[in-house]
Amino acid sequence: MGKYSVGIDYGTTSARALLVDLNTGEEIAVAVKEYPHGVMDTCLPDGRTKLGADWALQHPQDYLDVLKETIPEIIKKAGIKPKEIIGVGIDFTACTMMLVDETYTPLCIREEFENNPHAYVKLWKHHSAQEKADIITAKAEEMGYTKMLRRFGGRVSSEYLLPKIWQVLDEAPDIYEQTYKFIEAADWIIYQLTGQERRSVCCAGYKGMWSKEDGYPAKALLKELDPRLENLVEEKLSKYVYPLGYKAGGVNDRAARLTGLEKGTAVAVSTIDAHAAVPAAGIVRPGKMLMVIGTSTCHMLLGEEERIVPGMCGVVADGIIPGYYGFEAGQACVGDHFDWAIKKCIPSEYNKEAQTKGINLHQLLTEKAQTQRVGEHGLLALDWWNGNRSILMDASLSGMLIGFSLTTKPEDIYRALIEATAFGTRIIIEAFENSGIHISEIIACGGIVEKNPFLMQIYTDITGREIKILDSLQAPALGSAMFGAVAAGKHEGGFDSIVEAAGRMAKVKDTAYKPDSRNTKVYDMIYYEYKKLYNYFGKENIVMKVLKDMK
Amino acid sequence: MGKYSVGIDYGTTSARALLVDLNTGEEIAVAVKEYPHGVMDTCLPDGRTKLGADWALQHPQDYLDVLKETIPEIIKKAGIKPKEIIGVGIDFTACTMMLVDETYTPLCIREEFENNPHAYVKLWKHHSAQEKADIITAKAEEMGYTKMLRRFGGRVSSEYLLPKIWQVLDEAPDIYEQTYKFIEAADWIIYQLTGQERRSVCCAGYKGMWSKEDGYPAKALLKELDPRLENLVEEKLSKYVYPLGYKAGGVNDRAARLTGLEKGTAVAVSTIDAHAAVPAAGIVRPGKMLMVIGTSTCHMLLGEEERIVPGMCGVVADGIIPGYYGFEAGQACVGDHFDWAIKKCIPSEYNKEAQTKGINLHQLLTEKAQTQRVGEHGLLALDWWNGNRSILMDASLSGMLIGFSLTTKPEDIYRALIEATAFGTRIIIEAFENSGIHISEIIACGGIVEKNPFLMQIYTDITGREIKILDSLQAPALGSAMFGAVAAGKHEGGFDSIVEAAGRMAKVKDTAYKPDSRNTKVYDMIYYEYKKLYNYFGKENIVMKVLKDMK
Repeated sequence: MGKYSVGIDYGTTSARALLVDLNTGEEIAVAVKEYPHGVMDTCLPDGRTKLGADWALQHPQDYLDVLKETIPEIIKKAGIKPKEIIGVGIDFTACTMMLVDETYTPLCIREEFENNPHAYVKLWKHHSAQEKADIITAKAEEMGYTKMLRRFGGRVSSEYLLPKIWQVLDEAPDIYEQTYKFIEAADWIIYQLTGQERRSVCCAGYKGMWSKEDGYPAKALLKELDPRLENLVEEKLSKYVYPLGYKAGGVNDRAARLTGLEKGTAVAVSTIDAHAAVPAAGIVRPGKMLMVIGTSTCHMLLGEEERIVPGMCGVVADGIIPGYYGFEAGQACVGDHFDWAIKKCIPSEYNKEAQTKGINLHQLLTEKAQTQRVGEHGLLALDWWNGNRSILMDASLSGMLIGFSLTTKPEDIYRALIEATAFGTRIIIEAFENSGIHISEIIACGGIVEKNPFLMQIYTDITGREIKILDSLQAPALGSAMFGAVAAGKHEGGFDSIVEAAGRMAKVKDTAYKPDSRNTKVYDMIYYEYKKLYNYFGKENIVMKVLKDMK
Repeated sequence: MGKYSVGIDYGTTSARALLVDLNTGEEIAVAVKEYPHGVMDTCLPDGRTKLGADWALQHPQDYLDVLKETIPEIIKKAGIKPKEIIGVGIDFTACTMMLVDETYTPLCIREEFENNPHAYVKLWKHHSAQEKADIITAKAEEMGYTKMLRRFGGRVSSEYLLPKIWQVLDEAPDIYEQTYKFIEAADWIIYQLTGQERRSVCCAGYKGMWSKEDGYPAKALLKELDPRLENLVEEKLSKYVYPLGYKAGGVNDRAARLTGLEKGTAVAVSTIDAHAAVPAAGIVRPGKMLMVIGTSTCHMLLGEEERIVPGMCGVVADGIIPGYYGFEAGQACVGDHFDWAIKKCIPSEYNKEAQTKGINLHQLLTEKAQTQRVGEHGLLALDWWNGNRSILMDASLSGMLIGFSLTTKPEDIYRALIEATAFGTRIIIEAFENSGIHISEIIACGGIVEKNPFLMQIYTDITGREIKILDSLQAPALGSAMFGAVAAGKHEGGFDSIVEAAGRMAKVKDTAYKPDSRNTKVYDMIYYEYKKLYNYFGKENIVMKVLKDMK
């Protein structure tokens, strides 16, 4: 009889379940399910109820459909018996917030609320509580909660839990009243599988402003925001927060029927999607940084002690790997830049050329850009098309391109955008190192990483560091499966710790991208200019804000 | 019997002859001739001799073909007798430099030199003598010729006469030796028509670094550049420079045979093309500025005294209208920006949409951009795709766009580029006014001006000033025809002065573009940001130069 673990990775528009062989570490089967309701950002499922600007909702039924369809599918594909699966782990986007009643039924499923947008799942990128976030930042500063603020770069994001909750209270007090619990979708899935509320330290720490030292934001602050929020934690959250790898419970009857898993199968406390990829890259100790490169990029690494890094998105004790502080930084826009260039800056003859060659536009521009020597296009960009996350933490910043001439071509812009995101990464690396958190190795994962060696070479040339590649296309799901195996424990054929699991299951390719010192030398000069512009437009000249305000 | 005057306007790729009725001011007939050899920038007519980077040559036979074909054509079209034409004026691009022997035959026409690039006409935009121009600037500064330098913004342009001559001496000393005279193409045409060398004050002043006060650059400076240049003026130029409207001579036998004009018809001293448009706009006194808007823009106005305006391209006594100082400023890239946007930043669906609508891409982008309110696109550009002429005089600057987001569209970029060129114009206007040269009225001409009311409204909104439109599609040719009529004089049915000619023949439309004060108010705020960036990248941050050096 084999020993397997299942990882389920809930992304923004779809989820995937991965079956991993615990003896060999091999990925046996994968099943993907698109969410039938997708991201709802214009109207509710009724087709009538319109949503405001910056709203982004989801439907919880989609999440259950994932469990119902993908788990039986991988069991079937692999041809194994359910009892061979000893553990399940799940990761989710966060803060993706649900409102549930006493039976943990989402309010939006109850007929009386189905036309009320506030009853639905607020997806991580539901950004319409920005005003609330800004007030929380201001009040926290005023009241001296600077340590709390500094743990996530000094500014409360509209993506966090508290602004989302406060928005419900403010705009739909009746819904707030009817809410038994506000809960991360990640934690809700754990409840669906086990019947236990076991909130994850990862979600609570990175998105709920919770810390091991101080817990959730203080009552005094909550009361100052709105007197009705004073006892929010006891009334509608939970003061208990559970470590990663901890067994939240066993699969219960209802979940066993839904998924085909054996009743009692160990289920681990959930993680956030990007963070789950860290152990999959074998990172279970300080010194290595993981970059998850996609439409945006997430940078994660571990430290022995809590340090304040300028512009980091969060530092959470035990938030990624138990026993260490987990640091997170981010770039708000990476692959999205390249898509923008493809969509908006491509003359029709390029479409024809790509068609003739049977390649897509990304491939065509890469082909044209990669023959250039460093500096040849004469452009430099600030990669802020979607604001700046780390290290400036300023969503009101915007993109810049400098160095245009009448001979500037689309591939020049494309390459300059790639380079700019790499310069942005170097700024983040240096911010960590300047804060005493040494980075000896970089590992990258994400679709772009697999598809675009040209981009990876630019990243390695610009950072002047070797970059290794995570050898799995399902890194978060693999990490979740690892936590599932830890939840099961060694006595069940799993592992006693994530360190042990990583030793067996983590996957990094042997070969690494290595910097070409000639390129690095030229990029060093350009980076010097990038940093000057970064500081000038990030801190001195407010033109980007002025222009944004006029829009 | 009627009284007519002919103006011939020699442009960069073609020339046009215009016949004007002196009694009514009416434009009777026009004929256009493309230059058969066009602009030679890759190789000589032999198809073998390659040209270096930044070379731009022409063939003088093309200029003679213009005389031979266009003048008979307008006479024929108008159905008039040659003797009814009493005067001829010509304008030309400058400095467009020719090398001739004692018979004023261009060296390139002599078989022994036909394979030598240096024997050909160096077009105004022949830029390969930049190094020479830079040395002249440095030496002139060193030797204290600051007044001379300040007359054209402090920096010698590679487009000027002296760098072009020095390049010949340096790279082809044998050709230099064989050259009897270096002469502006404008002045050479006058010689072809009259057999007289009558160099124009306009060409000498704006392009030859000649001034009424000090003449050509001093012998000491010329000697310092190269001892062989010491007596350049006496040996290969001429110390005589003639005023505009002056009769250079009468059409001689050979020219009469070539053109069909009556022998003895008065021929005026030549002007530069843009400058010829000034009287055509009725500008014969201080206070009004003419903008000739095209791929680049030229700004001209008159003053009572010599003043030094930062970054102006030239101030020449009697250089535009006799009796006044003629001031010129310029923007190196205007329409070229919009063409760049059309060529490089247009997704294929825009091509399809334009096709479906039966309009061109400029029209489509205008259509999309003009419905935006001011500031809506959130972008701001520095209009330096081709460097900056006025007021920074720095060809090593490059373009910048700031304010990008993921929703930035091609029409946003298009509109931002139009706005940037208008902000650049406002900088120039303010530089004049701050130097005590008041501008009470602005008149514009050029193809873009006629075709794009949207652009004109932006210019009027951004400058906060009314802009009138010159009511002729052939403004330089009209101005030249006016000078031709002045050369003929009143006793022949022409005019005694250009002021008198302008009173009868100048044409400005009755209606004017008027600023919308609501738009001006918003643009004032954006202009404030534009100026800050203008000074920062123009004077403080050298990133543009660093990037250009790397190319």
